[in-house]
Amino acid sequence: MIKLAIDAMGGDFAPEEIIKGINLAIEEYDDIQLTVYGDEGKIAKFLIPNERVMVIHAPDAIDMGEKDPIREIRRNKETSLVRAFQAVKDNEVQGAVTAGPTQATIIAAHLIIRRLKGMKRAALCPTLPNLGGKNRLLLDVGANIELRAEHILQLSQFASIYMREVMQVHNPLVGLLNIGSEPGKGREVDKESFHLLSADPNVNFYGNVEPKEMFTTNCDILITDGYTGNMIMKTSEGVAKAVGTYLKESISESFKAKIGYLFMKDVFKDFKKIMSADEIGGATLFGVNGIVVKAHGSSTAFAFKNAIGKARLAVKGRVIEKMEAILSEMVEENE
Amino acid sequence: MIKLAIDAMGGDFAPEEIIKGINLAIEEYDDIQLTVYGDEGKIAKFLIPNERVMVIHAPDAIDMGEKDPIREIRRNKETSLVRAFQAVKDNEVQGAVTAGPTQATIIAAHLIIRRLKGMKRAALCPTLPNLGGKNRLLLDVGANIELRAEHILQLSQFASIYMREVMQVHNPLVGLLNIGSEPGKGREVDKESFHLLSADPNVNFYGNVEPKEMFTTNCDILITDGYTGNMIMKTSEGVAKAVGTYLKESISESFKAKIGYLFMKDVFKDFKKIMSADEIGGATLFGVNGIVVKAHGSSTAFAFKNAIGKARLAVKGRVIEKMEAILSEMVEENE
Repeated sequence: MIKLAIDAMGGDFAPEEIIKGINLAIEEYDDIQLTVYGDEGKIAKFLIPNERVMVIHAPDAIDMGEKDPIREIRRNKETSLVRAFQAVKDNEVQGAVTAGPTQATIIAAHLIIRRLKGMKRAALCPTLPNLGGKNRLLLDVGANIELRAEHILQLSQFASIYMREVMQVHNPLVGLLNIGSEPGKGREVDKESFHLLSADPNVNFYGNVEPKEMFTTNCDILITDGYTGNMIMKTSEGVAKAVGTYLKESISESFKAKIGYLFMKDVFKDFKKIMSADEIGGATLFGVNGIVVKAHGSSTAFAFKNAIGKARLAVKGRVIEKMEAILSEMVEENE
Repeated sequence: MIKLAIDAMGGDFAPEEIIKGINLAIEEYDDIQLTVYGDEGKIAKFLIPNERVMVIHAPDAIDMGEKDPIREIRRNKETSLVRAFQAVKDNEVQGAVTAGPTQATIIAAHLIIRRLKGMKRAALCPTLPNLGGKNRLLLDVGANIELRAEHILQLSQFASIYMREVMQVHNPLVGLLNIGSEPGKGREVDKESFHLLSADPNVNFYGNVEPKEMFTTNCDILITDGYTGNMIMKTSEGVAKAVGTYLKESISESFKAKIGYLFMKDVFKDFKKIMSADEIGGATLFGVNGIVVKAHGSSTAFAFKNAIGKARLAVKGRVIEKMEAILSEMVEENE
């Protein structure tokens, strides 16, 4: 059995959509067992009772707008998020899934679960919208403002294992996001990362990738520091939103275009679906000592089910254990 | 008369489109006088003779793929780009326009025209596609891998003057691109820049702007370092391209969508026009001692005419002189 802890109180539509997602996951995956932390009364309203689901009463949630999540996490050990992560720490479960606030999730994972031994940084890693017929991972998108080359290397190793086990890509190709495709481009950290990635036997390194190739490159994994990754993600969001708004307004202004839209409706609907966070099923936190999947704050039941599915595959594929093996090899080499 | 030097040999369609652009500009603006550097024989084929256009024979061009532009610029003083910039340096003209390679343009401007006295960095500044009904400047997009806060401040001052004079925006609002909108977000350089920008009387500072608001923000100027700006620009390009490819493929796969496309054709055509570099008319180099407009490499005659128009307004608005006034004030304050 794969054991996962679920934070039932995080996210815009908690606990209803979270619990409905749990119902879907239990139905779909017969090898999972879930410990659900949240408000028992509210959970009971939506949960389809099942022997593989255990509910633990933890009604407090961390507020999405919490200004000082570090203090809040230290102050209140009874929030559903902290309880779920404590279960990972105590080895009661092998992973946790939450739709709670991103920064609080990252901080709580660091404070409670802690980083893998030898792992220098943890990173948040979403899957990019599948626009070019290929799933790609992007990291770091916000756990670290800055990363050194050795961090980039470790995170690339982790991402490679994850891609192999969770997304069944045999020999995932890693690209370093950069302002130019030639070697020697970019900041000092980029040049050093290029060098380390080229030499590492655990990483199938492609070279530099410009963000304009983000959705067409053969790379499966695109890596950069958290500041840059976050800017790239938010730029993508901005452009997609601007294009959407532009098309909407243009269509509403022309009768002819309105007719055209009726015929093209399916195309736009499919496009929206591809771009939606629901399909993607959340970002995974790479580098802490347990699987942590952060579902989107606006997760629906379907999205949350997908997030649980990701955590399940990561546990099943023994991602953590495989990264530990690389980390202990590196320690031996350095001794 | 506004005197400008034109590099006739730079760009994918040089000299034909460049010269045709000159013809258009001479017709549209009766207050400009152009000195055109390039291959006299080839130029003569396309140029409509005019007393306000003088041709100087300089047939050599810097190759778009030149690996070492610094060496090339130092080695050959006779290229059309170097000759045009030398005319700026020698005060024979007040500005120069080129569609040549970006890096060579930036380097040649530094080596030949040189930075304004007191100006610590120069930056390349394009106009963003007008998706939200507003023209916005983005800088730096590639002249500097790193910038310090004081550089960001000077460049914001320059951009504010430029926006006022060239784009006729009365009191342009400056936003600092960042991973979060609250003060205190981002890297050290972002926090310091926020502080300097807030205190400066020459800049109408809005605060931090996340790239997801790039096309909706009230800001007229969006500033960051050259690495980040370049990544943002290339991400935008990547997303726009991916969306375009996706729509194209979806339409080709469905008969119904094809019909819809016929009705919506104008919407897509207008969209393509807005996104096209031709409308924008090139990026301006902020910080060197003269106006330098870098037209897109794939400039058509129309695009190049627009680039000349930009240089004209920058000279007319005395952008350089106004920045010099701020720079000399700052020197006095520091004395």
